[in-house]
Amino acid sequence: MQQLFVIKIGGNVIDDGAKLAAFLHDFAQINAPKILIHGGGKIATRLGDKLGIESKYINGRRITDGDTIDLVTMVYGGLVNKKIVAQLQSLQCNAIGLTGADANIIPAVKRPVTKEGIDFGFVGDVDSAKLKADSLKLLADAGLSIVLAPLTHDGKGQMLNTNADTVASSIAVALSASYNVRLIYCFEKKGVLENVEDENSAIPLITKDIYQRLKDENKLFDGILPKIDNAFSAINSGVAEVLIGEANDLLQNVTAQTQGTLIK
Amino acid sequence: MQQLFVIKIGGNVIDDGAKLAAFLHDFAQINAPKILIHGGGKIATRLGDKLGIESKYINGRRITDGDTIDLVTMVYGGLVNKKIVAQLQSLQCNAIGLTGADANIIPAVKRPVTKEGIDFGFVGDVDSAKLKADSLKLLADAGLSIVLAPLTHDGKGQMLNTNADTVASSIAVALSASYNVRLIYCFEKKGVLENVEDENSAIPLITKDIYQRLKDENKLFDGILPKIDNAFSAINSGVAEVLIGEANDLLQNVTAQTQGTLIK
Repeated sequence: MQQLFVIKIGGNVIDDGAKLAAFLHDFAQINAPKILIHGGGKIATRLGDKLGIESKYINGRRITDGDTIDLVTMVYGGLVNKKIVAQLQSLQCNAIGLTGADANIIPAVKRPVTKEGIDFGFVGDVDSAKLKADSLKLLADAGLSIVLAPLTHDGKGQMLNTNADTVASSIAVALSASYNVRLIYCFEKKGVLENVEDENSAIPLITKDIYQRLKDENKLFDGILPKIDNAFSAINSGVAEVLIGEANDLLQNVTAQTQGTLIK
Repeated sequence: MQQLFVIKIGGNVIDDGAKLAAFLHDFAQINAPKILIHGGGKIATRLGDKLGIESKYINGRRITDGDTIDLVTMVYGGLVNKKIVAQLQSLQCNAIGLTGADANIIPAVKRPVTKEGIDFGFVGDVDSAKLKADSLKLLADAGLSIVLAPLTHDGKGQMLNTNADTVASSIAVALSASYNVRLIYCFEKKGVLENVEDENSAIPLITKDIYQRLKDENKLFDGILPKIDNAFSAINSGVAEVLIGEANDLLQNVTAQTQGTLIK
């Protein structure tokens, strides 16, 4: 099967003009079907502050009220998405910027109020069974590089806010039927570190056996466990491999593995 | 040739939730390839006011400085575009929301400073020779209804603000090689009125001969002349016909002409 890259970048790249430019330069060079998923970094929070839209969090998760879904639709789906598309076009990368509502790519369900009474507001949980991999394939096969904002919709006219990591893994899983998918999570560290204090201690390869051993030895810091669990969940659902590390390391030689942690 | 509709709506529809919902209902019913071009109405101005971004005009044209291009990219390309897409999806119309930067659909040139020294800022004049009709055709042939924000790009990484009427006519002309194009301008009047005081005096048909006679008789109010001139310009460049009038009249029986002014 043809290789396809699903690459997620976070705030540490989006909020830094030079890092973003360097990343997009590397992304444009990838000579294979590719999908970029971006968040909005701090831009939404800063704009919200100016507009008097308070950023509310419960247990570290943003509460998306009516003003906030409009805010992130503007920032993620408009400002950030189109700036990335325009920059990629200048690099001769024929990008198309979309949200999960466009071409009905990512139908979602508004998250119900929890048993504890927490209402996350306009947050969408991906309806994986309805995800339109065929629409993504049509665009990718036409030579278009898809730039996806982490927004979905409920099919009833409402945009929804969805975690960008989840969008990336859902897309990667759905495309695994047609492509050999490498899912790449760019974050602020050089990979899964064996020693949190040492940036150069990235573990090059994690298999299920190695993961079990690392957990048994209590070597991994807590924050990284959900990322690795999500990676194995994607792999169990068909994704060929997951690569985790810093943006500027991972795309240099994207079909091989130069740095970062490969999970397979 | 297959019929295709290019339909432009303005602020009088976008700023009125009920009118917009009614329009989108009619739009979704059109059983043919269709492209919707929307502006941002007063939403950009209102948001700009909140953010302290002054709306500056020279001779009735908005000056698009750095803050303003970000503002309209958010509002046109994000908020308004995605709300329309989500609503169309709820009406079983498989919409895809784009700007002229996406898939490089509408390359443009930043307007040079005029001889009089007026700098319109980040305003784009459509580079018609480079317009990607084939990308629009690919999407339309895949059953997607295209929702287009009036934004273009300069190919060097910069988004540009472009008049929505111009985007509509440029798209209509470019698609005329592949489709029998009806270009529809929805505005606040019921058509080209023979008597400006009488909303029910819409002239049903304007040909070149009729237009000349109406001008000779000084029957038309000044504001409508550029619209008719633009319509004939599009027709001279291949568009089959142009229909002008109120949104709720024009889409009821869109392949025929129930109301409004048909120019051909």
